[in-house]
Amino acid sequence: MTSLQQSFNVPFTYTVSFTNSLFSVTNPVFRTFLNQQVMGKLVRKVLVVIDEGVAQHHPSLANDVRTYLAQSANVILAAEPLVVPGGEAAKNDPKLVDLLVDAVNEYGIDRHSYVIGIGGGAVLDLVGYAAAIAHRGVRHIRIPTTVLSQNDSGVGVKNGVNYRGKKNFVGTFAPPVAVFNDARFLTTLDDRDWRAGIAEAVKVALIKDLSFFEWLETNTDALARRDADAMNYLIYRCADLHMQHISGGDPFEMGSARPLDFGHWAAHKLEYLTNFSVRHGEAVAIGIALDVVYSQLAGRIQEADTERIMHVLQGVGFELFHPALAENNSEHLVRGLAEFQEHLGGELTITLLDALGKGVEVHEMDIALIRQAVAKLEINSLSKAY
Amino acid sequence: MTSLQQSFNVPFTYTVSFTNSLFSVTNPVFRTFLNQQVMGKLVRKVLVVIDEGVAQHHPSLANDVRTYLAQSANVILAAEPLVVPGGEAAKNDPKLVDLLVDAVNEYGIDRHSYVIGIGGGAVLDLVGYAAAIAHRGVRHIRIPTTVLSQNDSGVGVKNGVNYRGKKNFVGTFAPPVAVFNDARFLTTLDDRDWRAGIAEAVKVALIKDLSFFEWLETNTDALARRDADAMNYLIYRCADLHMQHISGGDPFEMGSARPLDFGHWAAHKLEYLTNFSVRHGEAVAIGIALDVVYSQLAGRIQEADTERIMHVLQGVGFELFHPALAENNSEHLVRGLAEFQEHLGGELTITLLDALGKGVEVHEMDIALIRQAVAKLEINSLSKAY
Repeated sequence: MTSLQQSFNVPFTYTVSFTNSLFSVTNPVFRTFLNQQVMGKLVRKVLVVIDEGVAQHHPSLANDVRTYLAQSANVILAAEPLVVPGGEAAKNDPKLVDLLVDAVNEYGIDRHSYVIGIGGGAVLDLVGYAAAIAHRGVRHIRIPTTVLSQNDSGVGVKNGVNYRGKKNFVGTFAPPVAVFNDARFLTTLDDRDWRAGIAEAVKVALIKDLSFFEWLETNTDALARRDADAMNYLIYRCADLHMQHISGGDPFEMGSARPLDFGHWAAHKLEYLTNFSVRHGEAVAIGIALDVVYSQLAGRIQEADTERIMHVLQGVGFELFHPALAENNSEHLVRGLAEFQEHLGGELTITLLDALGKGVEVHEMDIALIRQAVAKLEINSLSKAY
Repeated sequence: MTSLQQSFNVPFTYTVSFTNSLFSVTNPVFRTFLNQQVMGKLVRKVLVVIDEGVAQHHPSLANDVRTYLAQSANVILAAEPLVVPGGEAAKNDPKLVDLLVDAVNEYGIDRHSYVIGIGGGAVLDLVGYAAAIAHRGVRHIRIPTTVLSQNDSGVGVKNGVNYRGKKNFVGTFAPPVAVFNDARFLTTLDDRDWRAGIAEAVKVALIKDLSFFEWLETNTDALARRDADAMNYLIYRCADLHMQHISGGDPFEMGSARPLDFGHWAAHKLEYLTNFSVRHGEAVAIGIALDVVYSQLAGRIQEADTERIMHVLQGVGFELFHPALAENNSEHLVRGLAEFQEHLGGELTITLLDALGKGVEVHEMDIALIRQAVAKLEINSLSKAY
């Protein structure tokens, strides 16, 4: 028997730019990017897909994009911007994937053209997936419009849609060619969406960076009253930690570990149990609370640590319990743990806390301790103990 | 404006093993691979998908796989092997993608389980695509069964299916975790499929390796009379050059150049014009003949070079002209050139020959010269000049 060994590295690079009013004609950021990307006389096509909710809150956006691109020498708008439903609906309808792949076909978007998604995390996941499979991948630019997408999913490398009711069951790892975080979009978020993204910042601070957690403690009130500067710093710092994690580890998740999924195993199940009436960030806040109390019950952190964390989460306005957690004596949660393992594959790997700013991977969880943690959250929510 | 820079490399490795009767219980190759992959007590699931034509020619195959895996400690067959239509039909029916993604869901195939495709290039493209998008990619093993898939597509990194009549319009770049080339499958190929894969060997020899081309000249007769040793060497050498090209260049084709597509721009169009009655390898042989004559007419190679190439192609049994090439005064071909550019994106990049074993990239083709080359092929096919 003979054999041939194949081995290569595929390099990926992209810039996440932080700006305000990206498509204001006086803002040079996007035009500078295009000038760097497109050399010579070539003209690239651009297909723009906008989240319906964003289009409603920013009625001039499509026109702003049109005007801005008309003044950029080396690109042309391939078609009128497409508008797609926002939120989980974007990922639940397979016809939307076809709609976008058809648009790539119809408007002649090639592997050197751009598909730009403007919207929340769900729309970016949909647009990123369609862009990743059409022509085996056309160039994809993300313009996230929520706190959650600007500090977490939008700056990462994953996309996906739901399939037969399973969240993110189909998707790929496909880094964008650029991300633009425009602070202007944050001003029109409702309070729930403003708050929801903060959960991912608490998460990444807790597992990776004590000083960022201390900053969150200091700025809890400012974040709660929607201070723009505080939020801009939070997004920058969280995106930075998230991106460092990706580049420093296993970008396409070929192993079993997923430390950035701290608090997420219960969150995924809770979203599903509540038919997504609890938003992702809200579910993550509860998932964090659960794994923090579990970490304390398991003797890994002190009660004082738990209280500091709960103070931040409640201080920015999160509920820390949902009745669905306790349904059927937490049987659902136990099943959620198994589903989490199946989605990741391989050995069960859950991140807990060993200290503030220090995550630790474990490979089993004690069901009795999970139930105790749920009970503690329920009691505390009734007594407002934290 | 602030920004964050993301930059990382994703490493990919896989082995292409050459063996005979892979699923004979006495053959240790596949079991050795499994033992290297699966550490500890974990048991991995395996989902097997077989090309209908292969299943017909090898009626004991499904049972052989079952028996072989039953004797391997760390894997279990997740379900009875699935059988899917072979050839282009595998890539034309979107329901087959759903069928395979559903199987991944139903049988609990996770990111550490394996989906094994056994078949010709089209079936491997289908199975590879489904495996690449389910769970954002489950581990995929390729067992190519034709000359073409063993020496070319099956050892590479691409997958895809047709969409709205466009070849490979959706797909991804997703390297397999292993490839097993089993010589036994070649014995049951019909003469057309035996021959078709030889075109890719001629192609890669012409653009990269004079000594391999000289070997092909010496072994033309042996290949024509289906000498197994000659074919095994051809496949090994062609796969090696193909894999070196991938690892030495731009594995996920982010640039415009595609030297391995020598002879392919006309081949793609010819397949389409003949409704795929001309097989891929047959179309590539004609596409090579066209670009060789074009290279000569453009003054890049000598008439003696052209004759040597034609001698090999005709010697193994290829036709070097098809009436569809000349239809509408070659208008179709001119359109094919534009479609080729659109699929690759960016600047038109075509590979021609500067010498035997030496490809060269050009960025425009002379339509009058293309027509002259087509006319020359037509005349020569009537007079059997080469």
